[in-house]
Amino acid sequence: MKQRNPKSKLLMGPGPSNPDPRVLRALSEPTLGHLDPDYVAIMDETAELLRYVFSTKNALTIAVSGTGMAGMETAMVNSLEPGDKAIICTAGAFGDRMAEVAERVGAKVVKVESPWGEPIDPEDVRKAIRKNPDAKVVGIVHGETSTGVLQPLDDIAGAVHEAGMRIIVDTVASLGGVDVPTDRLGLDVVYSGSQKCLSCPPGLAPITLGEKAVSFIENRKTTCRSWYLDLGMIRRYWSFERFYHHTGPSNMIYALNEALRIVKEEGLEARFARHKAAQEVLIKGLTELGLKPVVNEPYRLPTLTTVYVPEGVQEGEVRKQLMDEFGIEIAGGLGVFKGKIWRIGLMGTNATKANVIRLLGALKEVLK
Amino acid sequence: MKQRNPKSKLLMGPGPSNPDPRVLRALSEPTLGHLDPDYVAIMDETAELLRYVFSTKNALTIAVSGTGMAGMETAMVNSLEPGDKAIICTAGAFGDRMAEVAERVGAKVVKVESPWGEPIDPEDVRKAIRKNPDAKVVGIVHGETSTGVLQPLDDIAGAVHEAGMRIIVDTVASLGGVDVPTDRLGLDVVYSGSQKCLSCPPGLAPITLGEKAVSFIENRKTTCRSWYLDLGMIRRYWSFERFYHHTGPSNMIYALNEALRIVKEEGLEARFARHKAAQEVLIKGLTELGLKPVVNEPYRLPTLTTVYVPEGVQEGEVRKQLMDEFGIEIAGGLGVFKGKIWRIGLMGTNATKANVIRLLGALKEVLK
Repeated sequence: MKQRNPKSKLLMGPGPSNPDPRVLRALSEPTLGHLDPDYVAIMDETAELLRYVFSTKNALTIAVSGTGMAGMETAMVNSLEPGDKAIICTAGAFGDRMAEVAERVGAKVVKVESPWGEPIDPEDVRKAIRKNPDAKVVGIVHGETSTGVLQPLDDIAGAVHEAGMRIIVDTVASLGGVDVPTDRLGLDVVYSGSQKCLSCPPGLAPITLGEKAVSFIENRKTTCRSWYLDLGMIRRYWSFERFYHHTGPSNMIYALNEALRIVKEEGLEARFARHKAAQEVLIKGLTELGLKPVVNEPYRLPTLTTVYVPEGVQEGEVRKQLMDEFGIEIAGGLGVFKGKIWRIGLMGTNATKANVIRLLGALKEVLK
Repeated sequence: MKQRNPKSKLLMGPGPSNPDPRVLRALSEPTLGHLDPDYVAIMDETAELLRYVFSTKNALTIAVSGTGMAGMETAMVNSLEPGDKAIICTAGAFGDRMAEVAERVGAKVVKVESPWGEPIDPEDVRKAIRKNPDAKVVGIVHGETSTGVLQPLDDIAGAVHEAGMRIIVDTVASLGGVDVPTDRLGLDVVYSGSQKCLSCPPGLAPITLGEKAVSFIENRKTTCRSWYLDLGMIRRYWSFERFYHHTGPSNMIYALNEALRIVKEEGLEARFARHKAAQEVLIKGLTELGLKPVVNEPYRLPTLTTVYVPEGVQEGEVRKQLMDEFGIEIAGGLGVFKGKIWRIGLMGTNATKANVIRLLGALKEVLK
């Protein structure tokens, strides 16, 4: 069998991003038992670091043992009982997925839609809330990876809470790269993935739940439909009780721990500014190449830039050439944007001027 | 923040076991995009190696992006529709969990029970099948980690198939250490975990499905209740179609790939013989120390040995001393065996005479 030899590439798609070498080294630290005191101390520290990046004091803040999509399912299956009504905002592929996941856990879903490339209008959410006063939760994507839109949350969170509902926020593409104001807005359930702006390999899904969300778990009438993702049990593993639920993925937790230490060393404000600055260089360069951004300010997601493919250009060929000749990964469009846009990630470690200049140079060469 | 420094310990509990250094190194290979051609080639090779350890030609053979318990839930949620009847065999904690997971996915569960420490009696399964001819599946644990019993499968698989039902087998504690005769017995769904006899860190759940199980997925009347674990979609990601479902946990897949290469280099027969030989040395040594095995032959699980705690001995203290003074992890009992037994794993890389002698020396010192 020939040697397995994955080459290092510059990952400027929608994630995963390149982990810092420190994070890759942390992965190979010795595996420990899932109840080993040394391991559970690392779990505790990781939870504390997650509170820092989520800007929260929420006790129930953990990493789910699965990828970002496991985070989405954990959020839904622990926030809804079968038959509950959920208002799901969708203006892209991940909003659509949220609606589908909510339906699968048994919810009646009401959608609030916006065209791809635009944010959700808070007024539309208010209307949906007035029409559906029996809804229990409102779900919304903060950074829509399929469109590059950064969704403002202040107005919508306010409207949701006035109505006595809970808000579930997908921050898979924003956590660690853009401010996620969990406690400031009292966001009830917020989840993410390890592999984007945290620059940890894929495989873990950070999640945090506020008091109302925890109260739902404690008082639900039906058993959670998922055993694996049941936070009612998982939180007892992450608490001092150390209730055995599943075998904690120790090596991935080491990596997340190291990735979060790097975030904390840099500081959230500096990190957000770095992402923003890198995107500014990128937008300027793309514009000079004659490319047009999909999203207008102030709705541009700093961590993922979307840009239209020029007429007559085979977008897949460009991506293939970027990969084969320059070792750079960018992504094409999903859904209605398939074949029409490129998606360029500037996530975590990768959000630097040097990477932007490297990509722009390669892109110029490929497009000429 | 002080340096994270998990010390290397000899993991002789019920898993995780110690990964080979080659496996830990594989973890830190460069992270790749989940649709990168280099990465999907590694997925394909990993699936082929999984077919080798599962002794199967099943096309649908993959690693679920979660721990062994995600494997159990994947098996259940993809084999049952709400209201379906499931016969679940339980003679330990993991049989109990199987019943609970089946109930949560909406099944009506009929239990076939045996006392902890004994195997399931095939005659009891036949009776349950006769009483419940409308049951769709029979679930059973091959290596019961809570009791140390190796469940013979031939008779039971025969009875299940005669009745036109499907058999789901938990091989979390046996795959890679004991023969798992997937194709020989036509086992319909077989799942495992990465962290036991495969000696890969925890975080992945190998699973394989035969034709009848695949046909169930293709013809089910209700949508799978789990989006994250829906094999109808996941198999399209693991197939040539490369349908985007979730972000593949690349670094963990590298580790599993390397762990499986090690299994193949050794060869299954040699590996099974090594596990068996190591347990023989262990049983002999434990007997010389005056300790009595819980399980009688021929039902002893070679990969996990259970032994009674002698009267008057504080079992937790012994484990703590083994860990603190000798860096060796063994486990206590679960459920009815709590405080009454020790569980000693000889899994994968760890199943050697040298490790057994090291443990026996330490145990003799602690017990004297």
